[in-house]
Amino acid sequence: MGGAMAQNLLKSGHQVFGYDLSQTALDHFAAAGGIVCDHPQDAAQHAEVVVTMLPAAKHVRDVYLGEHGILQVLQSGSLCIDSSTIDPQTIQEIAAAAQAKQIRVCDAPVSGGTLGAKDGTLTFMIGADEATFEAVKLPLSCMGKNLVHCGAVGTGQVAKICNNLILGISMTAVAEGMALGAKLGMDPQALAGVINSSTGRCWSSEIYNPWPDVCANAPSSRGYTDGFAAQLMLKDLGLAVDAAQQAAQPVVLGSMVQQLYQKLCQDGHAHLDFSSIMHQYTTPPT
Amino acid sequence: MGGAMAQNLLKSGHQVFGYDLSQTALDHFAAAGGIVCDHPQDAAQHAEVVVTMLPAAKHVRDVYLGEHGILQVLQSGSLCIDSSTIDPQTIQEIAAAAQAKQIRVCDAPVSGGTLGAKDGTLTFMIGADEATFEAVKLPLSCMGKNLVHCGAVGTGQVAKICNNLILGISMTAVAEGMALGAKLGMDPQALAGVINSSTGRCWSSEIYNPWPDVCANAPSSRGYTDGFAAQLMLKDLGLAVDAAQQAAQPVVLGSMVQQLYQKLCQDGHAHLDFSSIMHQYTTPPT
Amino acid sequence: MGGAMAQNLLKSGHQVFGYDLSQTALDHFAAAGGIVCDHPQDAAQHAEVVVTMLPAAKHVRDVYLGEHGILQVLQSGSLCIDSSTIDPQTIQEIAAAAQAKQIRVCDAPVSGGTLGAKDGTLTFMIGADEATFEAVKLPLSCMGKNLVHCGAVGTGQVAKICNNLILGISMTAVAEGMALGAKLGMDPQALAGVINSSTGRCWSSEIYNPWPDVCANAPSSRGYTDGFAAQLMLKDLGLAVDAAQQAAQPVVLGSMVQQLYQKLCQDGHAHLDFSSIMHQYTTPPT
Amino acid sequence: MGGAMAQNLLKSGHQVFGYDLSQTALDHFAAAGGIVCDHPQDAAQHAEVVVTMLPAAKHVRDVYLGEHGILQVLQSGSLCIDSSTIDPQTIQEIAAAAQAKQIRVCDAPVSGGTLGAKDGTLTFMIGADEATFEAVKLPLSCMGKNLVHCGAVGTGQVAKICNNLILGISMTAVAEGMALGAKLGMDPQALAGVINSSTGRCWSSEIYNPWPDVCANAPSSRGYTDGFAAQLMLKDLGLAVDAAQQAAQPVVLGSMVQQLYQKLCQDGHAHLDFSSIMHQYTTPPT
Repeated sequence: MGGAMAQNLLKSGHQVFGYDLSQTALDHFAAAGGIVCDHPQDAAQHAEVVVTMLPAAKHVRDVYLGEHGILQVLQSGSLCIDSSTIDPQTIQEIAAAAQAKQIRVCDAPVSGGTLGAKDGTLTFMIGADEATFEAVKLPLSCMGKNLVHCGAVGTGQVAKICNNLILGISMTAVAEGMALGAKLGMDPQALAGVINSSTGRCWSSEIYNPWPDVCANAPSSRGYTDGFAAQLMLKDLGLAVDAAQQAAQPVVLGSMVQQLYQKLCQDGHAHLDFSSIMHQYTTPPT
Repeated sequence: MGGAMAQNLLKSGHQVFGYDLSQTALDHFAAAGGIVCDHPQDAAQHAEVVVTMLPAAKHVRDVYLGEHGILQVLQSGSLCIDSSTIDPQTIQEIAAAAQAKQIRVCDAPVSGGTLGAKDGTLTFMIGADEATFEAVKLPLSCMGKNLVHCGAVGTGQVAKICNNLILGISMTAVAEGMALGAKLGMDPQALAGVINSSTGRCWSSEIYNPWPDVCANAPSSRGYTDGFAAQLMLKDLGLAVDAAQQAAQPVVLGSMVQQLYQKLCQDGHAHLDFSSIMHQYTTPPT
Repeated sequence: MGGAMAQNLLKSGHQVFGYDLSQTALDHFAAAGGIVCDHPQDAAQHAEVVVTMLPAAKHVRDVYLGEHGILQVLQSGSLCIDSSTIDPQTIQEIAAAAQAKQIRVCDAPVSGGTLGAKDGTLTFMIGADEATFEAVKLPLSCMGKNLVHCGAVGTGQVAKICNNLILGISMTAVAEGMALGAKLGMDPQALAGVINSSTGRCWSSEIYNPWPDVCANAPSSRGYTDGFAAQLMLKDLGLAVDAAQQAAQPVVLGSMVQQLYQKLCQDGHAHLDFSSIMHQYTTPPT
Repeated sequence: MGGAMAQNLLKSGHQVFGYDLSQTALDHFAAAGGIVCDHPQDAAQHAEVVVTMLPAAKHVRDVYLGEHGILQVLQSGSLCIDSSTIDPQTIQEIAAAAQAKQIRVCDAPVSGGTLGAKDGTLTFMIGADEATFEAVKLPLSCMGKNLVHCGAVGTGQVAKICNNLILGISMTAVAEGMALGAKLGMDPQALAGVINSSTGRCWSSEIYNPWPDVCANAPSSRGYTDGFAAQLMLKDLGLAVDAAQQAAQPVVLGSMVQQLYQKLCQDGHAHLDFSSIMHQYTTPPT
């Protein structure tokens, strides 16, 4: 994701300093005109705007607050955008620490996947105060086309987490309903048609139906490949369930779907698209 | 439902014989020009087309196949449309029994609620062979505007059951996600906005959001009144889970949501709209 | 089951008339001195006491109340014991119909399995009024050693259903806990030892542990064979969930475990012992 | 818990230095002959054996490894016993850090509750190498009567977590089964009798039945007071689910029961005994 986003920043004419653990990613970045750095601090020290895209909260915490973290070298007045999908608390703590150094931090997790990152059509869910939101519009508009202001710092993560909680459940619901209908003898195409013109309609039934060949461009129609991996959905459901636990809020379906995705990964489908949850209900036709 | 549907048949100029257990319903029917009968057999005996709308399978079975059932008096060549929401097997058995008497039977459960019945804008999900589907188009078009041919007899019920299974789950998913977001400090209106422009989008989030005042015309914005009662959703989930049990098909989320609706009804909310499943997650603002 | 029970009745010196759909069962019965009949009515017409052991409610209903049912030929004053595991309502209806003919009916489902049936060590859970309970003690004591009076007609089934609901859940709980402990690196034997001396202790952990080689005589220690089949547990959980649905009582864990057993059967383990639910958590060592 | 355990150490003649955040606890401790310290380091610096009993992993981590942690002052050759219920990883990390200073650490979480702590009848589940297990036998035998060696460091926690996972599920199973039986018209005392002589038998049905007045001494028979609080069961289920998540192991029932306890606490019963999960199924008689 980060590589494709950096390419779009370069295309729009910005000078971009970059760091990644993957040498391949850095090679592509250099080939596109990016300036490769040896360490996050090197990349950050002269930057006006920093964009981070990292796998998990511990990496974000380390990059910003660690012994060699970038908050130590960033200039006063600089602006940090974290696009990782993590828990809301971490970014709120980082923003608080940054504020003491007059550095602004916002969370801006994305939806739209690797394709959206490449095409510059990502949606950013932004948690920031009003002034910071205004300031991040320009850099983010180079990488995405839909900038949604969710509220204060951390609410971008809340929105992402809640959306993906609903997504994981509704995808599983569609898989369950399609498998039941097929088992009861109904043509899956016809069933999808009814659902999509009725009250069961959802993104997972219309755009990304988990039954093969209902949506020609969905991963289910190409063997559940090249999509949003089941293990990433499992990670996001884990974030939702953990956040709910912290907040003492029941999430009974999210918790159940988390377990179904855990089973799916255990069964060897971790790298398939998350619509392969269909395999927990039936063996889909190929 | 049946009363409003009969009104629309009368409006379109048909002669309608009617029977109902409710005297009030019969009074309204008579006032609109309907001919009140003393028994289903009286209503059916001269009819070319019969429409039944009944609470459960046992009533449908009794009206068609019982000791005083209408199959005994219907003329050869007549056409029966059952719009009740029941299991697929019952209507298939009735259709088989009717065929021996050269009477055609189809299932045509509806979506669109009491408002759709009144306005004549119901969707009918029709299970019938091709010729029967052609034959029911005219009478059904007086009562609805969307006629979906789902396949052979019984598939109308399969489509209805699978759609409402997905509906019950996705409504509960939205309630869970909205409650979590609100608990984590996000503005519910903003959260709904993000979901509806992202992958969590579904009919339950866009049109019928269970959080009060997100959708001005949804039952949640009027105290969860005047909608599709929780106990009716519970009934439909029961049909889905029973059909799955007969077919040896797992429906883990449907089964879980059935239990959540059972709890909701036990807690005294059986007559509220089914979006009041929100009460299982939080006390919604009023 | 029925065959082994009949053998014990014969051993205790009673004259026994028998009927079964299986010729093999009838051959064994005849070899032990039983009088083979061609129809349930033939077996029942001269009997003082009737014992029925049948797969499901529809068979029980047919044998007692059907067109050629035994209530039509039974003598006034005779006594019927149904040991099938079915819903409580069916036996209550049969008892009511029988009462009109001065025939007494009780439900007496069993626990103890095929081994208990063979050894005459079954537990009978008896639903009957006080006088009927006294009357069935003698015949039942030939086939079992533990006669529990549960209450009025139907309560034998209630007790059986509730016990097996708890059994199915606690077996799955033990499978889940054992799999988790093993995954976290603990020796399963040691873990079972701790559980069995602590508050997690239950019949499923102590006597019938689903982890291989914890209980030498349990099915898990012989490849999950020769036990209580997963599909029979699925049937009993279905009875519990259906009874709960009729009674508007939530059974959230029972419902969930029913789905897990449905998945287990779908995965091809229907004929293994029900402790093979372990396969839903891990591949057990062999 | 810690206070009662310290009392038993004092009774057996040991010199005990103690620290607690609660002044009341320290007053009782002093009255019994304990030496009150101002800081954990003061209590630990001259000790041969250290016993810690703390609410959560972060406190354990802080007391051992923090800036003012006791590993900095403990003498080489000393022995640490942590009886808190926490995740296995934390104590393994502490043990590794301690080993470098030739200090031995073991985990020894307890079962038996506050009553067991007072009476000195606790069960300790001990994770330690063989030599350390031999060394902790003497001090632990002053506070408990059942010392179970579970395996290497951390396995005491694994055993505790897995036991309490099974306990939480089986308690909920018994509540569900008892509520269903009562709703179906069976006498709860009779039902408990059947279960306890059959395969549904478990600690939660026999010793601690959640239906009032089945077990005279259980919390359910005194308004669910003076037991193991629902919020503590919720905490332990959270540990199990988190450990499972780390280990990529599905725990579908544990996860579901965690949500039921979350709902119970949200409904205002956090401080009642955990058998009050009965309230999620019915209003128990008083």
